[in-house]
Amino acid sequence: MFNFQVLKTHNKSRRGVITTAHGKIQTPAFMPVGTYGSVKAMLPEQVDETGADIILSNTYHLMLRPGEELIAKMGGLHKFMNWDKPILTDSGGFQVMSLANLRKVEEQGVAFRSPFDGSSYFLTPEKATYIQYLLGSTITMAFDECLEFPASYERSNESMELSMRWAERSRNSFIKRAGYGQFGIMQGGVYDDLRQISAKQLVDMDFEGYAIGGLAVGEGQEIMFKTLDTATSYLPDHKPKYLMGVGKPDDIIGAVARGVDMFDCVLPTRSGRNGQAFTKQGAINIRNAKYKEDPAPIEEDCACYTCKNFSKSYIHHLVRVKEITGSILMTWHNLHYFQDLMHRIRTYIEKGKDFDFTA
Amino acid sequence: MFNFQVLKTHNKSRRGVITTAHGKIQTPAFMPVGTYGSVKAMLPEQVDETGADIILSNTYHLMLRPGEELIAKMGGLHKFMNWDKPILTDSGGFQVMSLANLRKVEEQGVAFRSPFDGSSYFLTPEKATYIQYLLGSTITMAFDECLEFPASYERSNESMELSMRWAERSRNSFIKRAGYGQFGIMQGGVYDDLRQISAKQLVDMDFEGYAIGGLAVGEGQEIMFKTLDTATSYLPDHKPKYLMGVGKPDDIIGAVARGVDMFDCVLPTRSGRNGQAFTKQGAINIRNAKYKEDPAPIEEDCACYTCKNFSKSYIHHLVRVKEITGSILMTWHNLHYFQDLMHRIRTYIEKGKDFDFTA
Repeated sequence: MFNFQVLKTHNKSRRGVITTAHGKIQTPAFMPVGTYGSVKAMLPEQVDETGADIILSNTYHLMLRPGEELIAKMGGLHKFMNWDKPILTDSGGFQVMSLANLRKVEEQGVAFRSPFDGSSYFLTPEKATYIQYLLGSTITMAFDECLEFPASYERSNESMELSMRWAERSRNSFIKRAGYGQFGIMQGGVYDDLRQISAKQLVDMDFEGYAIGGLAVGEGQEIMFKTLDTATSYLPDHKPKYLMGVGKPDDIIGAVARGVDMFDCVLPTRSGRNGQAFTKQGAINIRNAKYKEDPAPIEEDCACYTCKNFSKSYIHHLVRVKEITGSILMTWHNLHYFQDLMHRIRTYIEKGKDFDFTA
Repeated sequence: MFNFQVLKTHNKSRRGVITTAHGKIQTPAFMPVGTYGSVKAMLPEQVDETGADIILSNTYHLMLRPGEELIAKMGGLHKFMNWDKPILTDSGGFQVMSLANLRKVEEQGVAFRSPFDGSSYFLTPEKATYIQYLLGSTITMAFDECLEFPASYERSNESMELSMRWAERSRNSFIKRAGYGQFGIMQGGVYDDLRQISAKQLVDMDFEGYAIGGLAVGEGQEIMFKTLDTATSYLPDHKPKYLMGVGKPDDIIGAVARGVDMFDCVLPTRSGRNGQAFTKQGAINIRNAKYKEDPAPIEEDCACYTCKNFSKSYIHHLVRVKEITGSILMTWHNLHYFQDLMHRIRTYIEKGKDFDFTA
């Protein structure tokens, strides 16, 4: 049985737990991204060890390589990648939009060409939903059009209406199974009335959760927070609220304060591979010359594998000479940092306190 | 106390144990290569888990980046990379030779330029020995000239004589410490009398072990085995005999049968990253289309982490889409395969049986 329970609230922040067929997700939750069915540079046990309750994987990437039929034949994505906790898959809409000239949006869906071999695809709400069914996703996302930023009111309205028609088709094609859920995605750009209309229509479709889409696309934190200030209130409080593609630690903290329960972002993994390490004192670039002879770990009081065993000097060296082991150590630390951040945020809500970033 | 004990012999094969300041090395032993102070794509615990008693690291690479002085300041290579078992370092001679136009060999040593920043270096037997001292290597290698193949008798003789003068200078500059050892390197190309002269001179210097150098440089297995047939007999049986840079499983098996105790090679790590997996039935290329839908592990009865948890289909996918996790899984399997091979070889010697490759 797919279920969301709010355990405690503090102002608009919510401390909750989602129960799924693959286990529980403590919220507010951060989902590491495993685009191709692997969190880059990590093993499943290591992702688990950082404290992640759920990961996100990308429908678009997996449908192209290795293909959803193959993954289904191999027993589904959980078995394929040896991860038995929840998996959320996006619908492919966001990635398809980024293909620019290679795709064409129609009422029926989106036609696009594979950038890998040029072969043609036509992704529809029904198709995207069925692909996620074949993958065995714990949480399926509705297929939507991810609106560009900036966009006019008229364009935002048209796109939102298309996404709502697609949401309904997604919902109608979702095969319900105990412990599995499907989330609708609110659109409407930066226009409050459009967000409200979008939310109302989605709620009528009765999804197991709701995402706030079309943010973190270049609008900046101020506009994002302003949009969230009202957007989350249009969504029902007894369902999880998921802000897609977010984000930096202060984005997450601000969004939790505005009522968001779930997040995903490539930031800890991607920036880790590029040498950026997150700490309670802010992000540092391990490639910086000042770490060359620094015998201390990335963060003194960090309990992660990397910080327990290695100096900044060693990781600086590995990243400089492009050793894969450097990417592993950086990713592990960053994923631990993000999960620890969520843990601290959850503890603050439980205690009824405003989050103190440096605590 | 650095010590080598032969526990059992079978024909020319030897089953032994080397005792060092950093623990025991069961021989015949295979050393994974950690060029820059990290076995590529692996964590120290994982290397340990495969059964490796010792790793090899490269003086040439470490002196250029991050520099031996820095590693010494960080407490030595063991602490820097968090590996507390034995480490053997080469002397840099082999890598310097491969620089071709960038280096110049003189009686005193080799002048070369860093391919990274163009800065000038002058590596001598004394310098190479001292760098390895600063790294804290458990086993230091003498500085030698690695002869090209093919080489005339005259060229082979001249080069061998230079290497023997360098071996003596290396030996004289080695700082003896309990549990640490230094190996001399036999040269002489494919000429039996030169190998014999080289061995005799090295034995007079009384190293803790002896390497057979100048092989695995393109001469092929037949010439290598022919050279080993006599070369190992010129070295004292109460000291370990190490064949540098070897090799493929059948190279190792043939060399053990000719009395070799130690090996190192980048093959399991490098070829793993390129998609080649070793099995008892021979090497396979995981990128091959026939593994796309293969739900079986790389090897059915393999006890490695990769084979216990993942299918060929999954690894095929990861390697095809260039996921780092694919490199990790392939490397882990291959290192396990090589350590398991050595374990099986040791067991055969203990039982007084000729090694059966498929057993």
